[in-house]
Amino acid sequence: MGTNQSDGLLKKKINRRQLLKLAGAGTVGVVIGATGLNTVASSLGYSVVEDDLTASNKVLFYGNHQSGVATSVQKHIYFASLSTVVTSKEELKELFQMWTPLAVKMMNGEEIADRTTNTYVPAEDTGEAVGLSASNLTITFGVGSTLFEKPELGLANLKPEELKVLPHFPKDQLDENYSNGDLCIQACADDPQVAFHSIRNLIRAASGKVTLKWAQAGFNSIPMIKNKKQTPRNLFAFKDGTGNPDVTNANEMNEVVWVQSGDSVPWMTGGTYLVARKIQMHLETWDRTALGDQEATFGRHRDSGAPLGKTGEFEDMELNRTDSNGKPVVPITSHVHLAKQVKDRMLRRSFSYSSGMDPKTGVFDAGLLFISFQKHPKQFINIQNSLGRVDKLNEYITHRGSAIFACFPGIEKGSFIGESLFKA
Amino acid sequence: MGTNQSDGLLKKKINRRQLLKLAGAGTVGVVIGATGLNTVASSLGYSVVEDDLTASNKVLFYGNHQSGVATSVQKHIYFASLSTVVTSKEELKELFQMWTPLAVKMMNGEEIADRTTNTYVPAEDTGEAVGLSASNLTITFGVGSTLFEKPELGLANLKPEELKVLPHFPKDQLDENYSNGDLCIQACADDPQVAFHSIRNLIRAASGKVTLKWAQAGFNSIPMIKNKKQTPRNLFAFKDGTGNPDVTNANEMNEVVWVQSGDSVPWMTGGTYLVARKIQMHLETWDRTALGDQEATFGRHRDSGAPLGKTGEFEDMELNRTDSNGKPVVPITSHVHLAKQVKDRMLRRSFSYSSGMDPKTGVFDAGLLFISFQKHPKQFINIQNSLGRVDKLNEYITHRGSAIFACFPGIEKGSFIGESLFKA
Repeated sequence: MGTNQSDGLLKKKINRRQLLKLAGAGTVGVVIGATGLNTVASSLGYSVVEDDLTASNKVLFYGNHQSGVATSVQKHIYFASLSTVVTSKEELKELFQMWTPLAVKMMNGEEIADRTTNTYVPAEDTGEAVGLSASNLTITFGVGSTLFEKPELGLANLKPEELKVLPHFPKDQLDENYSNGDLCIQACADDPQVAFHSIRNLIRAASGKVTLKWAQAGFNSIPMIKNKKQTPRNLFAFKDGTGNPDVTNANEMNEVVWVQSGDSVPWMTGGTYLVARKIQMHLETWDRTALGDQEATFGRHRDSGAPLGKTGEFEDMELNRTDSNGKPVVPITSHVHLAKQVKDRMLRRSFSYSSGMDPKTGVFDAGLLFISFQKHPKQFINIQNSLGRVDKLNEYITHRGSAIFACFPGIEKGSFIGESLFKA
Repeated sequence: MGTNQSDGLLKKKINRRQLLKLAGAGTVGVVIGATGLNTVASSLGYSVVEDDLTASNKVLFYGNHQSGVATSVQKHIYFASLSTVVTSKEELKELFQMWTPLAVKMMNGEEIADRTTNTYVPAEDTGEAVGLSASNLTITFGVGSTLFEKPELGLANLKPEELKVLPHFPKDQLDENYSNGDLCIQACADDPQVAFHSIRNLIRAASGKVTLKWAQAGFNSIPMIKNKKQTPRNLFAFKDGTGNPDVTNANEMNEVVWVQSGDSVPWMTGGTYLVARKIQMHLETWDRTALGDQEATFGRHRDSGAPLGKTGEFEDMELNRTDSNGKPVVPITSHVHLAKQVKDRMLRRSFSYSSGMDPKTGVFDAGLLFISFQKHPKQFINIQNSLGRVDKLNEYITHRGSAIFACFPGIEKGSFIGESLFKA
């Protein structure tokens, strides 16, 4: 979706690496996005080679793991849960073989097919992302437990034991219209139209093989300080993701997120489990609550994100601290206290949604598309059970949708997504 | 919502103007946003003074006209239609007096009130925009015809004759859940959370005086070429807004958009009429249509945006061109041909939405929040009537919501939004 149009100014050509060197940016560790780069170049009288520019907001499709998990969180998500209507394992395999090069192209910021001059047929690419950059698009594929229960697919013996519909948790009010599914595709990008375009085109290319079961768009507004991404805030204004494992630390990711050899069925090695929960947030009720009660509900200070009684977001929670009366500083019914009572951890990668008004109740239809990644579903289940009935946050939220998917490991060039399952 | 945190690097301080001069950017006409500025500064070994940086993505609240009309279109909208529950004109006036400074603060990227250390009460600002910049937020206020029909408000004699619920157009399938309203607030910003935050806080501050009637979020993905915004594409992949008046040309805006003295009731001088239409787009049907038929439907080429048979987006449409067989090159039933049959023009400022799946039909719940500004409602009505039953585009879209609002003129500092109405 790059362009070769010129702004008509005479400028010397330069590529990204040369420019960074010239500007000395490499030495001060500045992260420069496409726009910034262009600006630096222009101000110095250079014009950046276009292809090179676009490269700066592309995420690599290939690797040991799928993208969209350890990838630095993007601003937008379009999440789709699909039902399959294929009738054999072979047909399902062909679906993933067909999808793989399309996902690669879109993550590269390209249309899914070369344009033809034949206007008597529908264009292969729906076209709404033409002119937009790759926008750090990631596309992540997963399979649900129901896929393995379809006798015609013959996958029963390959089902990981731990891949089951999530148990009912206290206060769940789940709607099947936002729950479960045979397959999932998570598209995340810094542009909402790029994310939506990728899902639309994958589903369209699979016409007659899949149908949409449910979908949810969401956003993340990421505060920047000196070009460094900060922890985003959810619609309750609290930072969400502070306790996450360090996605750049392979050891931590292997411990928390990536399935290791021997942990599960062999085809899941290098994969991960994705939990999606559509959580309605009752903003009007929350907004009538005293700041102190809000902070006691989360166990953190709202503005700084620090543990109660502390000042820095990343300070140790020290759950057992007591005040002068011997009362816990971080209330034992607070969200963070309960979540940390169990040793399990997970990688949260959630997005907010604000879809307008719920016409039945007249309140904002808003909340969180909670997404977490973990190497075993029990990590999420244990934490959610610990929150259980006592979590103070339950007064302000309602879980409306729930799903779990086994996300394949990553692949090398020449392979196709899901190959480990179909080779097994 | 600026921050004073430092990245710990030792850099010379510089302000925006000094930097632009130093970098020579002024001389090449480069538009530099906050991120780009920061990057230029860093690469040259400077650190931009924070307040100065933030200033670059603020829109001015005060002026002859409200913001959010001639403002360069932002990436996100949150549009709210409200019902009033006030019981007197005085109370309504107080509502706008209360709202004005809040809107000013939020457009400046500030919280609506200074933070207090009293945690026994709810925080005045809901807080989810803390750490985010002003993001070019604009807040635009308007009033609907129903407001003037409330006897308790005594506004009947101030109602502009032309402010009426829009007539029924062929193929309208309107839902009152997305139509009409006593007041509207249009919040547009380059960040979705900043836009939503502003609406949420204005409604919350008006608790007991207004209720939400309907709301719609939307986005615009704006292709950039050499830092210059290009016409965005709608979800049918066609450029939307090509024929717009030049918002930087005062004459054109006075002719098309801004109510002139004598055009309407005196309090509307400098104001404009906002038409909002929630238009569902049947993507699956569209995607099965040949590219040639899609182009004949719009009357333009999809990729370039050029009139059929031409190559440049902004080339003259020349509606009467015929091919070698004497057939019109731009079909007379095409959207653009019909729209241009009447002399009326308007400023379109629309946003796409993709809200997930419609559970009743299993198709994407996606489309366009069409918004147009014009000095008289008849401009929109004439064009829409010309599209009428013949517009080929009607096969692919359904109008689900409709509203029209009279947007006040702008104000000077010290005044309050809507003052011209309450002084009248």
